[in-house]
Amino acid sequence: MEQQKVCQLAKDDRFDGFLLVRGAEKKTDRNGRDYVDMNLGDRTGEINAKIWNWDGNQNLPEGGKVLQIRGLVQEYNGRLQMRVEKWQPVRPGDAVPMEELVPSAPRNPDEMLREIRETAAGIQSEPIRKLTEAMLDMAGDRLSWFPAAQRMHHAERGGLLHHTTDMLHLARAALEVYPWMNRDLLLAGVILHDLGKLEELKSDENGNVTDYTRDGQLLGHLVRGITLLNRAAEKTGVTGEPLVLLEHMLLSHHGEAEYGSPRPPMFPEAEALHWIDMMDARMNTMKNAWEKTPEGAFSEKIFSLERRVYHPRYTEED
Amino acid sequence: MEQQKVCQLAKDDRFDGFLLVRGAEKKTDRNGRDYVDMNLGDRTGEINAKIWNWDGNQNLPEGGKVLQIRGLVQEYNGRLQMRVEKWQPVRPGDAVPMEELVPSAPRNPDEMLREIRETAAGIQSEPIRKLTEAMLDMAGDRLSWFPAAQRMHHAERGGLLHHTTDMLHLARAALEVYPWMNRDLLLAGVILHDLGKLEELKSDENGNVTDYTRDGQLLGHLVRGITLLNRAAEKTGVTGEPLVLLEHMLLSHHGEAEYGSPRPPMFPEAEALHWIDMMDARMNTMKNAWEKTPEGAFSEKIFSLERRVYHPRYTEED
Amino acid sequence: MEQQKVCQLAKDDRFDGFLLVRGAEKKTDRNGRDYVDMNLGDRTGEINAKIWNWDGNQNLPEGGKVLQIRGLVQEYNGRLQMRVEKWQPVRPGDAVPMEELVPSAPRNPDEMLREIRETAAGIQSEPIRKLTEAMLDMAGDRLSWFPAAQRMHHAERGGLLHHTTDMLHLARAALEVYPWMNRDLLLAGVILHDLGKLEELKSDENGNVTDYTRDGQLLGHLVRGITLLNRAAEKTGVTGEPLVLLEHMLLSHHGEAEYGSPRPPMFPEAEALHWIDMMDARMNTMKNAWEKTPEGAFSEKIFSLERRVYHPRYTEED
Amino acid sequence: MEQQKVCQLAKDDRFDGFLLVRGAEKKTDRNGRDYVDMNLGDRTGEINAKIWNWDGNQNLPEGGKVLQIRGLVQEYNGRLQMRVEKWQPVRPGDAVPMEELVPSAPRNPDEMLREIRETAAGIQSEPIRKLTEAMLDMAGDRLSWFPAAQRMHHAERGGLLHHTTDMLHLARAALEVYPWMNRDLLLAGVILHDLGKLEELKSDENGNVTDYTRDGQLLGHLVRGITLLNRAAEKTGVTGEPLVLLEHMLLSHHGEAEYGSPRPPMFPEAEALHWIDMMDARMNTMKNAWEKTPEGAFSEKIFSLERRVYHPRYTEED
Amino acid sequence: MEQQKVCQLAKDDRFDGFLLVRGAEKKTDRNGRDYVDMNLGDRTGEINAKIWNWDGNQNLPEGGKVLQIRGLVQEYNGRLQMRVEKWQPVRPGDAVPMEELVPSAPRNPDEMLREIRETAAGIQSEPIRKLTEAMLDMAGDRLSWFPAAQRMHHAERGGLLHHTTDMLHLARAALEVYPWMNRDLLLAGVILHDLGKLEELKSDENGNVTDYTRDGQLLGHLVRGITLLNRAAEKTGVTGEPLVLLEHMLLSHHGEAEYGSPRPPMFPEAEALHWIDMMDARMNTMKNAWEKTPEGAFSEKIFSLERRVYHPRYTEED
Amino acid sequence: MEQQKVCQLAKDDRFDGFLLVRGAEKKTDRNGRDYVDMNLGDRTGEINAKIWNWDGNQNLPEGGKVLQIRGLVQEYNGRLQMRVEKWQPVRPGDAVPMEELVPSAPRNPDEMLREIRETAAGIQSEPIRKLTEAMLDMAGDRLSWFPAAQRMHHAERGGLLHHTTDMLHLARAALEVYPWMNRDLLLAGVILHDLGKLEELKSDENGNVTDYTRDGQLLGHLVRGITLLNRAAEKTGVTGEPLVLLEHMLLSHHGEAEYGSPRPPMFPEAEALHWIDMMDARMNTMKNAWEKTPEGAFSEKIFSLERRVYHPRYTEED
Repeated sequence: MEQQKVCQLAKDDRFDGFLLVRGAEKKTDRNGRDYVDMNLGDRTGEINAKIWNWDGNQNLPEGGKVLQIRGLVQEYNGRLQMRVEKWQPVRPGDAVPMEELVPSAPRNPDEMLREIRETAAGIQSEPIRKLTEAMLDMAGDRLSWFPAAQRMHHAERGGLLHHTTDMLHLARAALEVYPWMNRDLLLAGVILHDLGKLEELKSDENGNVTDYTRDGQLLGHLVRGITLLNRAAEKTGVTGEPLVLLEHMLLSHHGEAEYGSPRPPMFPEAEALHWIDMMDARMNTMKNAWEKTPEGAFSEKIFSLERRVYHPRYTEED
Repeated sequence: MEQQKVCQLAKDDRFDGFLLVRGAEKKTDRNGRDYVDMNLGDRTGEINAKIWNWDGNQNLPEGGKVLQIRGLVQEYNGRLQMRVEKWQPVRPGDAVPMEELVPSAPRNPDEMLREIRETAAGIQSEPIRKLTEAMLDMAGDRLSWFPAAQRMHHAERGGLLHHTTDMLHLARAALEVYPWMNRDLLLAGVILHDLGKLEELKSDENGNVTDYTRDGQLLGHLVRGITLLNRAAEKTGVTGEPLVLLEHMLLSHHGEAEYGSPRPPMFPEAEALHWIDMMDARMNTMKNAWEKTPEGAFSEKIFSLERRVYHPRYTEED
Repeated sequence: MEQQKVCQLAKDDRFDGFLLVRGAEKKTDRNGRDYVDMNLGDRTGEINAKIWNWDGNQNLPEGGKVLQIRGLVQEYNGRLQMRVEKWQPVRPGDAVPMEELVPSAPRNPDEMLREIRETAAGIQSEPIRKLTEAMLDMAGDRLSWFPAAQRMHHAERGGLLHHTTDMLHLARAALEVYPWMNRDLLLAGVILHDLGKLEELKSDENGNVTDYTRDGQLLGHLVRGITLLNRAAEKTGVTGEPLVLLEHMLLSHHGEAEYGSPRPPMFPEAEALHWIDMMDARMNTMKNAWEKTPEGAFSEKIFSLERRVYHPRYTEED
Repeated sequence: MEQQKVCQLAKDDRFDGFLLVRGAEKKTDRNGRDYVDMNLGDRTGEINAKIWNWDGNQNLPEGGKVLQIRGLVQEYNGRLQMRVEKWQPVRPGDAVPMEELVPSAPRNPDEMLREIRETAAGIQSEPIRKLTEAMLDMAGDRLSWFPAAQRMHHAERGGLLHHTTDMLHLARAALEVYPWMNRDLLLAGVILHDLGKLEELKSDENGNVTDYTRDGQLLGHLVRGITLLNRAAEKTGVTGEPLVLLEHMLLSHHGEAEYGSPRPPMFPEAEALHWIDMMDARMNTMKNAWEKTPEGAFSEKIFSLERRVYHPRYTEED
Repeated sequence: MEQQKVCQLAKDDRFDGFLLVRGAEKKTDRNGRDYVDMNLGDRTGEINAKIWNWDGNQNLPEGGKVLQIRGLVQEYNGRLQMRVEKWQPVRPGDAVPMEELVPSAPRNPDEMLREIRETAAGIQSEPIRKLTEAMLDMAGDRLSWFPAAQRMHHAERGGLLHHTTDMLHLARAALEVYPWMNRDLLLAGVILHDLGKLEELKSDENGNVTDYTRDGQLLGHLVRGITLLNRAAEKTGVTGEPLVLLEHMLLSHHGEAEYGSPRPPMFPEAEALHWIDMMDARMNTMKNAWEKTPEGAFSEKIFSLERRVYHPRYTEED
Repeated sequence: MEQQKVCQLAKDDRFDGFLLVRGAEKKTDRNGRDYVDMNLGDRTGEINAKIWNWDGNQNLPEGGKVLQIRGLVQEYNGRLQMRVEKWQPVRPGDAVPMEELVPSAPRNPDEMLREIRETAAGIQSEPIRKLTEAMLDMAGDRLSWFPAAQRMHHAERGGLLHHTTDMLHLARAALEVYPWMNRDLLLAGVILHDLGKLEELKSDENGNVTDYTRDGQLLGHLVRGITLLNRAAEKTGVTGEPLVLLEHMLLSHHGEAEYGSPRPPMFPEAEALHWIDMMDARMNTMKNAWEKTPEGAFSEKIFSLERRVYHPRYTEED
């Protein structure tokens, strides 16, 4: 049986199911008794929850973990709050509906990864193929669940694969419209362009980014991607133009200095990569805002888009 | 037999073929004799030419017209110059290799126009289809040869169709990757987005833009497109959301105030239209710069891209 | 007898008079009893108010309506709060001091409208006069109370007329200093420049703007003004330069792309319109900030001016 | 008899009249003979001129001086050139049509100066009046002919008075529309705002600016105006608010840091001064561009306006 | 005995020592009894404090004054709060540890002032030395404790001297690396560049800036510095280049219009002054952020630096 | 005997000495005879030169090479031109006054290099020292003559060493003023920050930059410096924080995205490096402009500084 969505909880509802802990703190009430003040959520939203009469010796629920919860929804100061009546950590064998708890890519990670691997294997140019495959080898298992961002776009379990495979589809269309481009270079560029994020973001296996890494803060994923690529070049013995073209594509894919690329794209495949990346990132952000907005209405101002978004009715009458 | 390309002319060559007049002026030499100083070109380049001993009563060759020319290539002050020995205007029946003289879209205009018409006819939403077809009707024959710009991108015979059909291909790919978008709206947006240019630019039938129109200068093709769309709405009786959505798509397709759109795209189909337009325009500009640059070399700084462009060798060795 | 101004209420005051409802909500106290939490205001300020022991079946007071109120001013958590003792909706015949409740233009609307109508009637050029009068006809009665903005300047009952008539006075002075300008064009431009706001803003008859319309959001008042003008042109049969000059004036009156005008003013009358509009808008904003600041003091930073404002003492000593 | 305008000279015309020297250089022809290569002009334009067979011992004509000239207009390399046949410096008593040679303000300088003096004398506030009159005293006679700029606006003999008196007219209109402003402050601000230019620019008595002064380059007329004002304060004994308000008006009249004002206007009279200054400067620039453009045509891009200017036909037909 | 640092206070601690009042307000509790709600601090932090059962007739503790305090640290709503048990104003003779209460420059003010005075006395150029010494005379005693800013950098007791002397050290190093610069000009520029702040900021003797002055708001310390310098010139009889060079250095030391300098530095000594000022200001800001950040961690985003700051471990292992 | 400076050549001078070829081209005169048209220069300037009656079989003089020249200075079209009478390539043993021909650093390269090497050897932290020394080893001999730029600053033989050693002096002063900084990190940062330029610029041994390299164009010296540093890390086995801190210093030393640094400096040593680099680069540019400007005069607008530069008289009178 499906558990209730957090965004649909109402006063006096009873909840019974699994929720993700998003931060928990021990506090003391007016009478000096300890309690736990925490936020619980699924992919649809978040609710504040209290465990009263907390035994101070217990371990505090940890952020990013899933709890099995039974509780009552109350209202306090005009906001909903869950009074937790029973709770326990997940035990092996529990049927945790993970896809309900965290935002996830719509396709299966293995399937997406296979598509990327096959694309890499199909690259004709030996040095480009070797670099691409070496980078994928270095990326390893984390690719299955890594998100593409903390908040902006594809901030979801498997988001990096989602972003990359959608871009591959757009890239193949671009290669049909602009057949004079170099296929190997563009497809490799798509696969490699964001792999530096694996070293820029700290993500748990739910695709939830808690922070940036030291190297991510100090260098960013563009430059970190380039040093990884040089490591792959060392391993595979690739040098010269194929390497520097891919380095340039990593460096320039944000398009402008203002957005982190000290070089603008300087050849057609780098230019195409930039627009495909922009388009896919923005369409994902736009979709998220549009989905949450009722038909015929405008969203609040979306921070990353710097505008309000309208959800058309798409019907023929006004 | 193919005539020689202007970009390949060398000192002492004899030329025999057709060339396009790009500006001609009557001048007087030191001895008081009239001569014609003009520039002749084909799609690959331009050469200065002189007709000495000009009979002042003749009509001056007119810019935009084709002449049949026989002449000798000389060098003067380090630059090539053609001494015209024989010349005459084109006569009916002359086999003028028009595609060699003016830059032209790579596909046949009728074929492109047919594709656009069929796409319009396939729009499911009645109001959107009616508006789209009414706008195409109003555009009329000029569509066959109209360019998309004076200089920036698709500045070529049939460039407007070329730009629009390439964008349709990208739009269809985008609809596969983002199937939650409204197909009718996106395809109609692509077809309509630049039709205002028909009233913004003054172009001859070779796709050569000599100037902007008064209305083009004072209002621009975005806003002129909107008033044309309102005229189409008046004719077809369409009102309400379908009309305003398309008005918004015309207005916002440049993406930012700085580039002429007082509104940014506010729903997904407008957003997609913007990126597809940007990508196609930039890929065309990039291709033009890249084609003219030798392999392994950098171009001069390209004004519209604000950067130099590199033409990779695309080989495996350095 | 004049009722007390909200900005002058103090602890323990008793209030007896009419106030405007600005948002009201039903809430529940700790004992489960319903009460109403609302904000009441006049043109000088706003106070939070409670109706305790609310009968849940009554209709909640509606935002934008006027209530007759009797209550006691108390202090809670350092802020004033009115305990409502008696209240009722306005009944026909009540002497509601509307000008005390909402900010209003200083001149009588009918008088301002008459001035504008007479100016329009005095335009010599037939096509310009026809377009101007047709636009005024289409604007209709809403002109009497429509504000010029939600917040920035002339956000008041009759603000659009206030802004327009003040600009007419400045325009007449400009025509004396720059007598080479075309009088008809400048006066018509002033009258028409903001009429698109009637379709951009949702305002009640108090000049209180609750939101932007769908078309206002998607197109803005500049572009909507142009489509209205084209409708007027259709009705009056006006075409050609007079129409396109006025279209350009509407489009360019914000002066720069950054402020919403995709074209800068390109002839003298459009340029003059822009500066007169800027000056009148800014002087109004400046006056509002200056009035609220005590003599010899600085205001807080004013958002729309991006600066603090000083209210000089204007005396001869320091 | 009126002499021919330079902008109307054509090949084979004979010219007889006075012209202003704008730069002259001694050169040597192929045969080793000296000649003078100079530019001559009136307020309508400029023509290159040669004095062949120049006696090397003569003094070269000096820039900024007027010559009486007789010559023949010829064409060389497609450009007009005057062959000077006879020339001599102006002698006392020559009826030099100065107003034809240099751009001049349309009103009589004495009349403009009288208007400014009377306005200053009418200031009610004693400290403000004293400061204003002391500044005018310090400015002295140069006011009669000083221009307002080297190129941008009112770059003409008497341009500073022209700009100031036109602004006074606009300021008086503003005081009627915004009667809550302080009359003394605004009128004094207008009179004083550009007096620092007297120490910023090097101008001859024709209003022709040859350069900036050292202090003008290093400090600018805003800051130099403030130190002059402090000198006036020292003389008159004025201190306190009246002084600092005027200092602020001088400092802020360009409106934004980007345009040289480190402070934006912070009280209403300073705000009004800024807009009146902007409007008058821009209307003058616009008029100059518009006058030179034929009806129904667009100018080239005007550097200081960053746009092309259209000169409407102002007729009712298209 | 050293008193406890505010940043180290913990629940249930008893505090006994001196603290600085940072704002105090009289409030009323639910039972109608008056109490004082105030913030107390030392240079390490701030804590909220309550004096319950306040006798309404007493004078409220004044911001900026020091109190001797005995109290108990409690927790309320998860934040620390001090219950004041005993308090009294400082009496003459109390050993107030001022350096613990307010941030102060690390060196002794008299020593710093002496260094500056000696540097001024060592200036070889008579006009430059006279201007510098006259400005220091006018600055007077306030120099001993004046801060360099309200918040940005050197916001501390004696901060103006601290900033100036550190800059003198950098300037001497620059004179060794660039020995072609004029020593007198650079050293005088350093000493004078921020003296206008004495009239821009309102500071108490603890270096705590409560506000900007009227003149500071309307003119800023750059321009106010120039009028002070002109007063010094009047006194000393200095005119000409030495004066205008120093005026320019004051005006240009922020480097760009955007940062308040309407002129960029236009000679080498002005350029050097700008970079030395920038460097010292930024190093101070950076140090403050870096000190508060634990080793191996990133700070929050620092407003004035627009970035997060990292505190390296500086050890050889990772 | 010293040869004549090119900037001092005058008409009819005879020149006898060595000059550097800056571009040479074979051309044909009106009579069909070949001649050489070239530019010759020393560090003070450039002059056009012709070798008439050129034997077409000879090798054209090569850009960047030195020729021994005898010639006559003539004037043509108002510009000086040298008629070359005798010329030959430099032969071994010729006493070429290289320091007169190309701009060079004022100190001896070996001495500068020794200073840098000793500074590197004195670094206490082993990983930082190893990285620094490995990078210097990789840089090799080119360091002796490499310039720091093509045009902007230190565009001279040995300019990279000149820039680096001057920065080391400033850095040591900064370490005295801010003794809490990490000495090793700052000194290593200075030494390494521009080494990537060795792979960004193509320079001959005279420090004359003819172009950017492919990698320089596509990646820039900041990013290329980072990949070189990673190669040094590989060789020396250094990993972890010391490596990433230096990577960040290379990446951030331009300070802002707009100037090529995708990350701003995020720790004090990186911040100090940025300002020291800025200051030294700007002081060098300023010095070059100032030296060329006569005392008491202003330069033309200097492109890289976006301003005119003033050369003060530095005397006590005006």
